[in-house]
Amino acid sequence: RTLRIGLIPGDGIGREVIPAGRRILESLPSSLNLNFSFVNLDAGFETFQKTGTALPDKTVETLKKECDGALFGAVSSPSTKVAGYSSPIVALRKKLDLYANVRPVKTTAGSSNGKPIDMVIVRENTEDLYVKEERTVEGPNGKVAEAIKRISERASMRISTIAGEIALRRQKIRSATPGTSAHSQPMVTITHKSNVLSQTDGLFRETAQRALAAEKFSSIHVEEQIVDSMVYKLFRQPEYYDVIVAPNLYGDILSDGAAALVGSLGLVPSANVGDGFAIGEPCHGSAPDIEGKGIANPIATLRSVALMLEFLGEENAAAKIYTAVDANLDEAKFLSPDMGGKATTQEVLEDVLKRL
Amino acid sequence: RTLRIGLIPGDGIGREVIPAGRRILESLPSSLNLNFSFVNLDAGFETFQKTGTALPDKTVETLKKECDGALFGAVSSPSTKVAGYSSPIVALRKKLDLYANVRPVKTTAGSSNGKPIDMVIVRENTEDLYVKEERTVEGPNGKVAEAIKRISERASMRISTIAGEIALRRQKIRSATPGTSAHSQPMVTITHKSNVLSQTDGLFRETAQRALAAEKFSSIHVEEQIVDSMVYKLFRQPEYYDVIVAPNLYGDILSDGAAALVGSLGLVPSANVGDGFAIGEPCHGSAPDIEGKGIANPIATLRSVALMLEFLGEENAAAKIYTAVDANLDEAKFLSPDMGGKATTQEVLEDVLKRL
Ligand SMILES: CC(C)[C@H](C(=O)O)[C@@H](O)C(=O)O
Ligand SMILES: CC(C)[C@H](C(=O)O)[C@@H](O)C(=O)O
Repeated sequence: RTLRIGLIPGDGIGREVIPAGRRILESLPSSLNLNFSFVNLDAGFETFQKTGTALPDKTVETLKKECDGALFGAVSSPSTKVAGYSSPIVALRKKLDLYANVRPVKTTAGSSNGKPIDMVIVRENTEDLYVKEERTVEGPNGKVAEAIKRISERASMRISTIAGEIALRRQKIRSATPGTSAHSQPMVTITHKSNVLSQTDGLFRETAQRALAAEKFSSIHVEEQIVDSMVYKLFRQPEYYDVIVAPNLYGDILSDGAAALVGSLGLVPSANVGDGFAIGEPCHGSAPDIEGKGIANPIATLRSVALMLEFLGEENAAAKIYTAVDANLDEAKFLSPDMGGKATTQEVLEDVLKRL
Repeated sequence: RTLRIGLIPGDGIGREVIPAGRRILESLPSSLNLNFSFVNLDAGFETFQKTGTALPDKTVETLKKECDGALFGAVSSPSTKVAGYSSPIVALRKKLDLYANVRPVKTTAGSSNGKPIDMVIVRENTEDLYVKEERTVEGPNGKVAEAIKRISERASMRISTIAGEIALRRQKIRSATPGTSAHSQPMVTITHKSNVLSQTDGLFRETAQRALAAEKFSSIHVEEQIVDSMVYKLFRQPEYYDVIVAPNLYGDILSDGAAALVGSLGLVPSANVGDGFAIGEPCHGSAPDIEGKGIANPIATLRSVALMLEFLGEENAAAKIYTAVDANLDEAKFLSPDMGGKATTQEVLEDVLKRL
């Protein structure tokens, strides 16, 4: 099987980590019988400055017509408001209907000093406040701006269904490798703020409950958590959580919180998943402070490559990458500066590659 | 001076901690020349079940006409949707125009094993998604619900101004008692998500920057943090933060996150502050799991009493309470179960009272 992968480095350290993602795909053992071809695509703030758009049509069209999956690096946010600029990743998620943002957060055997953390945040990726329908009016007391938070039954249903499927899949992998996880039963925690937003978050909550009440999910333990106490619990007993499903904005916030628990945003991958398409994307940003120094942590990207492969049905290839990355972290000999080490992006990458 | 205080215990452990709040006010040393009178007021889910409204007009009227301040306990959220029920504390904040929700989070000398945490979250308390303007339509693919997120220049200006004033006041107290804090300079961190919500959160951001650029705030170091990375930083370097100012919902989430850092929600107070009025309110909820057992931690309420007094201009009385509470925590002899101790609500209270 040959997979065609779009490479969208974006800005800043996106350009340093996406090449590492390409390298690991090219270095997968030939026994897997997987080949890759690549196409470089533009997006980001620099693209905006050059062309007037942060996400050229050509990028979207090429992804749609030619590609099986893609890797997205990071984009810079302008530090002051720039007319006409808007985040290309948010637009891409919508244009390709990549409705799930999947963000696994786990400690490796060596890295956890406390109880092991092994959770995945499944974030709705197309609506909520991210519809970006805003307006501003000039009132008697100054400006008043409004934004729409939109929650639909359809999007809530499909995100909750994929959350349930991910919970079952995780359980299957756990059963195959006993002793590797703290969880004995699959669990999904529905996060919302329906005590204030009874209609919008109420709809998310009810729909999620209904989705997860399906016969095929009967082995899953379903819980709910109001978003503020979810953040509290996330810090107090992170080892308890398995799959957390949340509307877009809460998912954004929760996944950064979860990343903090495992030491560095530089470790946390994500995949933007739609039907038959997936974009791997490290959770970190463009990191202007370390840009160009060659010391960005490539781990989040390497894991994002694996996550993309998982959602493209290549679970064996994905498992190889996860194992190599975990071995690198557990040995802790080649760690980048965000992890307290001294290794460059290149050195971390080479260490992972030799373990493939 | 005699202050008339409304007591609104609400539901669950609200009824166990608010009496402790009353007791500490009655026990303040007479040298302070402060007297209190009290009026009991209804609100909450049980009130709703009895009367059809969670916040009777009489409660609001009495607060407005008779009281100088109030203490609010907690209310239960129904576990399934109940028609007509809506949170009384959210309504109260709006009806009394208590535009700032102030939530200090700190470790005491004895409790911190890492670096000391000493921050306050200043949360806008009247708008954002809490305007609760929602509607639901039935579309071709099922229900679609929308909520309005409203951000005004006026509310953003006054919350940022009070955040600046709080930063200066904290600095003044620090200068008077050197060595008690990690902060050498007042700092305010503006939290928003203007990279996605350019108009609403953009307006909050710009207005906050303008408010804090005022001459009287020139000694304050002003920073910004996007809300998702704010949560990340909150967990990674909490000791760095002094005052964090945020729109309503982010403030709600951040304050629960900050509470997790200091060990228990049972420690964290809040005050809902308007011009000339303040309601003290522990950050914890009604805690149905421990209701009626007499083991609720009264510390969050005692500190909320102090915070209320501070905003009513009684800083000396407030300081007495803070000192007594810190001494109780540092000695760690009478701690409630949430803190790993065995003391009852009553025993913790008595221990604090004898230190007044
Ligand atoms: C850059 C930003 C628009 C984006 C988001 O909010 O989704 C980022 O925080 C993320 O989590 O991918
Ligand atoms: C109970 C709920 C409506 C409330 C809020 O969201 O403000 C609570 O979480 C709080 O922080 O006081």
